[in-house]
Parts: sequence; C-alpha cells; structure tokens
Amino acid sequence: MSVLYGRVALIGLGLIAGSMALAMRRGGLAGEITGYARSSETRDIAREIGLVDRVYDSAADAAEGADLVVLCVPIGVMGGVAAEISAVLKPGATVSDVGSVKRAVIEAVAPHIPEGVHFVPAHPMAGTEHSGPRSGFAELFDNRWCLIVPVEGSDRAAVERLEALWRGLGSNTEEMDADHHDLVCAVTSHAPHLIAYTMVGVADDMRRVTDSEVIKFSAAGFRDFTRIAASDPTMWRDVFLSNKDATLEVLGRFTEELFALQRAIRTGDGEHLHQYFTRTRAIRREIVEAGQDTDAPDFGRGARK
Amino acid sequence: MSVLYGRVALIGLGLIAGSMALAMRRGGLAGEITGYARSSETRDIAREIGLVDRVYDSAADAAEGADLVVLCVPIGVMGGVAAEISAVLKPGATVSDVGSVKRAVIEAVAPHIPEGVHFVPAHPMAGTEHSGPRSGFAELFDNRWCLIVPVEGSDRAAVERLEALWRGLGSNTEEMDADHHDLVCAVTSHAPHLIAYTMVGVADDMRRVTDSEVIKFSAAGFRDFTRIAASDPTMWRDVFLSNKDATLEVLGRFTEELFALQRAIRTGDGEHLHQYFTRTRAIRREIVEAGQDTDAPDFGRGARK
Repeated sequence: MSVLYGRVALIGLGLIAGSMALAMRRGGLAGEITGYARSSETRDIAREIGLVDRVYDSAADAAEGADLVVLCVPIGVMGGVAAEISAVLKPGATVSDVGSVKRAVIEAVAPHIPEGVHFVPAHPMAGTEHSGPRSGFAELFDNRWCLIVPVEGSDRAAVERLEALWRGLGSNTEEMDADHHDLVCAVTSHAPHLIAYTMVGVADDMRRVTDSEVIKFSAAGFRDFTRIAASDPTMWRDVFLSNKDATLEVLGRFTEELFALQRAIRTGDGEHLHQYFTRTRAIRREIVEAGQDTDAPDFGRGARK
Repeated sequence: MSVLYGRVALIGLGLIAGSMALAMRRGGLAGEITGYARSSETRDIAREIGLVDRVYDSAADAAEGADLVVLCVPIGVMGGVAAEISAVLKPGATVSDVGSVKRAVIEAVAPHIPEGVHFVPAHPMAGTEHSGPRSGFAELFDNRWCLIVPVEGSDRAAVERLEALWRGLGSNTEEMDADHHDLVCAVTSHAPHLIAYTMVGVADDMRRVTDSEVIKFSAAGFRDFTRIAASDPTMWRDVFLSNKDATLEVLGRFTEELFALQRAIRTGDGEHLHQYFTRTRAIRREIVEAGQDTDAPDFGRGARK
C-alpha cells in the first residue's frame, strides 16, 4: 500500500485513535501522524509508548498543516474541538470523525468547517470494552465495517480517499445517509448497549440478596452483558444523548416485546415463547451466513481458559 | 483419573450429554456409557458417530443396570422420563440431571425416585448456542462451575461421588440450595437470555425499515445478543416456565431500571447515565478478577476472522 495522506492528525488518543495509528503504520498509509489528547496524562502515555510521531499540547497545533484530521473524541465535545481547530485547517484538507452517531456530529461540526476544507464523517464499527491510549491494536478494524456518511456537497475525491484509508486500515466500507445510519446503529448497537448496561446494574443491585454469587457464577449470558456494559461511560453517555430519538424508539419497541414475553411466562404460554425463540435463532443463522460472526461450537472459549 | 461409575446412562443426547460422554471418555471416568434420545434421528446420529457405547430405543433400557443415570432432557419432560425409568433403577444407583432450574426439577423427579436410589440434582453452567448430538465437545465444562443441589436426605457418599465426576469432567463444583440456585441463575442467566431474545426479535421487526442492514452491520453488542438468542428454544421455554417467579422478579427490576435510564436519555440527564455506566464497568472488573472471563484487549476476535 502507499501513503494516502502526507500528515494525519488524530484528535483524541483513545482506543480508536490508537488503533488507527497502529494500523496506519502497519499499512504505511500516512507520511506522519500527529496527535492531541485533552488529558495531559494521556498525552504523556502516548509520548512514552510512541503511539504517534508527535504529540501536541493543543488540538490546533496537532491539526495545523495536516492533510487529514480525524476527530476521535466523545460525541459531546466534537463541536468544541472542531471550533478549536477551524482556523488552522489547511485548504484542501479533509476533516473526519469516528463517532457512533452521525446526524448530531454533522450538526455540531459542519458549521466550523471552513470553505475549501472537506468534511467526510465516518463510523468504524469496531471497538472493545477497553479505552485509553494503551488499549489500541492494529487489527481492531480488520474485516469490520466502516460506514462513510458524506454530507451534502462532499467532494467525491475526498470521500474516496477516506474510503481508501479505511480499507487500508482493514475495514470494509459502505456509504450511508446520516439518519439511516443512526437508526441502523440504534438497533444493532445503541439499544443493545443500554440494555446490557441495565441488566448489569440490576444484577449489581441483586447482589445484596445473592452475596457475591452473581459475580462468582456469572454464566454465559450475563458475562457477555458485562463485557458490553464495561464500555467507556463518557462515550456511551454521549451516544445516547445524541441519538436520543432513534434509541428511544427502539427501546419502546423492546419494552413492548418484553412485556409480551413476560406475560407469556406468567400465563404459561409455552407456544408463544417457543415460536419467538425459534425465530430469533434463525436470525443468528443469517448473521453467521453474512460472515459477521463464526458458529464454531466452542467460539470464544479459547481465550477464556 | 479412575473409573467413578461402572455404567453411566445419559437420557437425552444433546449438547450437554454429548459433551459429558466425550469428557467422561477423556478422563476415563465411566466403565461404559449408554444413551437414549426420544428422536430416532438423534439416536441414529449418536450411533453413527459413536457418541456413547450403546444407544437404546427406550429410556428404561438405557437406564437399567446403570450406576449413574443423568437426565439431559428439557426441564418440562424430566418428570415423565423419571417415571419411565423408575422401575428399572438399580438399588444404590444415583440419578442426577443437568437442568438449569432446580426447584421445579426436584418437584417433578423426586416422587419417581425409589427407596434405595440416590437423587442428586446438578447444574453444569456451561453451554453454547448449538444443540443436538453433534454439538458436544469434551472441553465444554473445563473451568466452568457445576452447581450440585443435594435434596433433603441426599446420601453424602453419592453427592461426593457425583462432585468427583464433575471435577473429572473439568468443572469446579459447589453445593447450593435449590431456591437460592434458581434466584442466582435468574439473575446471571435466565433474565439475560430473555432480554437477548427480546432485543433480537425487535431487530428482526425493525428489519422492515432498515432493509437487511441490521444483519449486515450487526455490531458487537447486537451480535453477542444474537448468539445468546440462538440457544435451544425448547430448553429455554422450559427454563422460563419452570423458574417463573424468580425470572419475573428480576425482569420487573430490570424494567424499572430501564425506564429510569430511558427517562435520563429523554431528559438529557447525562450525569445519571455516566454514573450508571461507571458502576457497571466496575462490575466487569470484578468478573475478570474472579477469573470468569478474560480482559484480553482483542478478546474473542481471533475466532471471528
């Protein structure tokens, strides 16, 4: 692969930015990588481990002269960061982001993008429950989707160069409209995360009646929930607040269905339960067939031993 | 390890029984393993792949003369199976089961256990989303918990021999009271499963507004839910129907918490969300520290590539 951007600035140095830096190096995709993080502790760690080529003490210094600036900060502060770097953006440069919500990010960031600078929002659908400058790894994006969400008037060449970058980072890319993106993600990611957070909170409350046995005997279902519910609190707070409508719509439907299943349990309607569970099993098969997961019988267990 | 039971009969030949057979062979724990499944197709497959030493066409034939009979059938049919084998049980033999609910199994099975036969219920907390005679593997129970739930008057020697078997199969064992078991499992396993089933059902409904993008872009949270929601429909129907009270209690608390979080999203109460998510993250840490999961940063991904 070849260099796609002479200089890339990563604003925010957490899991996603760190993984981008490592994967850009792996692919030789950037001439130079600069970085900035709001916390001086994060900046110190990034310098110590050499996460990027140069760490600056302000977002503007890191962004100045960059051919690509990627905002890798929680959604709630994207607008503020965009305002900070607005004046130093190089004509012809591209600004992108990695936020899990797109309509809110576009509304917050677009007003700060000067004439002659390209704004191409993106959302790499990849992550772990870890965060911070030490949590990144080069393989994070391999075989994952990165959704590219061009805004009105996005320059085609700028869009295609960013897509090439994400493919170079290991992802598959697809373009999508912002509102549609936010709905799809509310279903596949945002609502499931809130539900996992809720269930883990309930289990913690019930610990008082079960001693610490909830922890000790955390079975497969719950254990998977705790992993999801260990994701970065600030990032997820901002996701829910900025994708409010779609998330609440999905949660409303969820509650409706849950009540129907609770009633089936209470009234002993085994037929209803069995039909429902048979249908959900079929969906799993589709996901495995779509290559989004494996159905190896001991999946995921190797790492747990 | 040495032979703990001269003959073991497995009634039901699905994921758990198949894994038990393979792990018993691995450990040399049984002199001979017999088996029975209600479906002739399952029996044929079990014979074809040599899952056990001999497959019988009736539960009574399989159980006759066995030193240990393990009921590996859905909870709803445990009582019926116990009635079928009652007359042929050898004096001094042990009857056990692998059901995920214990009070209901004890009520259904205990009346059919003749004088002189030991009944020692058990619950191996292990499984995958697969089922059937081909889904077992010898490592399924390694490092998992198997909860042993002695009933009133359970013979200590019989209890301890069964515990030795489960440790031989790779599990850690602990004894627990039936009602307490059912509550702990409602929190750590039953309620999470119902919630995952519900969310996957909702996503399937919403597919109509999102084309097949819910499948295509199934992100981490949702993908984990689909795996949980692919578990055996009959087994889970019976779990919910037979652990009704504890499951409904946990779901009631869950709904309460979910409503509070939904309200926080609606009113923009970021502080509430952030505090909640910080608390759940700490619970994850405890689970990792308790050795119930790994926090490797690319956990589970290797198998997905």
